[in-house]
Amino acid sequence: MTRWKLTCEYEGSGFCGWQRQGHDPVSVQQVLEEAIQKFSGETVTLQVAGRTDAGVHAFANVAHFDLERDTNGDTIRDAMNNYVRPHRVSVLTAEKVPDAFHARFEALNRSYVYRILNRRPPPALGLQQAWHVQKLLDLGLMQEAARSLLGQHDFSTFRAQNCQANSPIRTLDRLELSREGEMVTFDVGARSFLYHQVRNMVGTLALVGTGQWTLDAFQKAFAACDRRAGGPTAPAHGLYFKAVTYPKITSDNVDGAQGEL
Amino acid sequence: MTRWKLTCEYEGSGFCGWQRQGHDPVSVQQVLEEAIQKFSGETVTLQVAGRTDAGVHAFANVAHFDLERDTNGDTIRDAMNNYVRPHRVSVLTAEKVPDAFHARFEALNRSYVYRILNRRPPPALGLQQAWHVQKLLDLGLMQEAARSLLGQHDFSTFRAQNCQANSPIRTLDRLELSREGEMVTFDVGARSFLYHQVRNMVGTLALVGTGQWTLDAFQKAFAACDRRAGGPTAPAHGLYFKAVTYPKITSDNVDGAQGEL
Repeated sequence: MTRWKLTCEYEGSGFCGWQRQGHDPVSVQQVLEEAIQKFSGETVTLQVAGRTDAGVHAFANVAHFDLERDTNGDTIRDAMNNYVRPHRVSVLTAEKVPDAFHARFEALNRSYVYRILNRRPPPALGLQQAWHVQKLLDLGLMQEAARSLLGQHDFSTFRAQNCQANSPIRTLDRLELSREGEMVTFDVGARSFLYHQVRNMVGTLALVGTGQWTLDAFQKAFAACDRRAGGPTAPAHGLYFKAVTYPKITSDNVDGAQGEL
Repeated sequence: MTRWKLTCEYEGSGFCGWQRQGHDPVSVQQVLEEAIQKFSGETVTLQVAGRTDAGVHAFANVAHFDLERDTNGDTIRDAMNNYVRPHRVSVLTAEKVPDAFHARFEALNRSYVYRILNRRPPPALGLQQAWHVQKLLDLGLMQEAARSLLGQHDFSTFRAQNCQANSPIRTLDRLELSREGEMVTFDVGARSFLYHQVRNMVGTLALVGTGQWTLDAFQKAFAACDRRAGGPTAPAHGLYFKAVTYPKITSDNVDGAQGEL
């Protein structure tokens, strides 16, 4: 038996999210598990770092599974990319990892990107790839508000009601805002997030950016530790699971297959 | 009567190209002309800077038309963006211009961008937004080949057979290549281009980049001034009409409506 680490890119629009829901559209997990079954004949269950919601995209989400069959990373990647069609998911790399590796529980840090297309005209290119906000956002004010979120806090104000985490306490390591032309990008990092935390933080920061909320109102809402005090949930299609980091894997246990050129 | 300059973004995949073809799918021109008709009641014909092919995208293509009705740029932009739905075209700006302005004949310089996703795994995000080339491209070699294309030359080697231009002589002002991660970008500028010139240059430079052609073979093909000596036509979905420049318009003739935030 070999444990394999998969790094995957996907376009969230055509999926019900990462996890199987038993209804249309299909989940990313199901498409990948079926692709593994088709090329190997083995039925596996994927464990994933980021259980993304319907509509949420991924640049590089990471999952693992075990395979009896002896093969190599390039073969797994290419065979899976053949069988996942026409679904919009792509295996970037398949790497041999130690049996103790766990994509979800060993994750040290997860990062997300949130994109806002900030202009008056609607998007024609990149549809469903950013949240379209027509009113000009004041990034300076948003950055000031964002600073208060850094570090360890009770994030109940940004926690979805159906969040299943034991505690509302999280440590936000990074929340950086930048603008490039009409595109505003949030770069967010933490060991883990509450359900809808990133989208709720973005939706509430946008209220500050458009001037609907003052900085003071934002701080009060955050301090209230109550979801009802927070702003709206930003739409799923602006969110990207960007990356996950793990403790260093010893080189003698790692297959060289990187899927890189 | 007022002459209006439209700047438009579109996703080429759902269109037969800029020009009306009388068959499915619809053209960008038809969708825009019908949107003008719907809000103004006037039947107009658009003149455009870049008559892009089926599948080719635009960041900012420019067209003009005349309207009897008195209105302003913001109204035209917003009304058109309402009526073009669900087609993937967006009016970025509508600006009042002097009657002598001509989007096609007055263009001083047109620029295109061509994007190649250069990696082994197929794309899941940004499908139909870049040409997927699996083999690693040597940008240094391609840049050396590209240098010989700059300036005034007979571009017959890169001219589609059904090109209707009077002469194969063009002046290439800019052909810059860059790589950002897995994305290779060509930035190309000239007063005008032959039919399929950019895609044929890119397709032939890619042969150099993958090592299938030597630099010497590339130079000989260019010097042959014969389309049969050139490489393949790169696919339409990697190409973007980026911008067009015009002689300076005097400010007293220009409406301030920029569609900017």
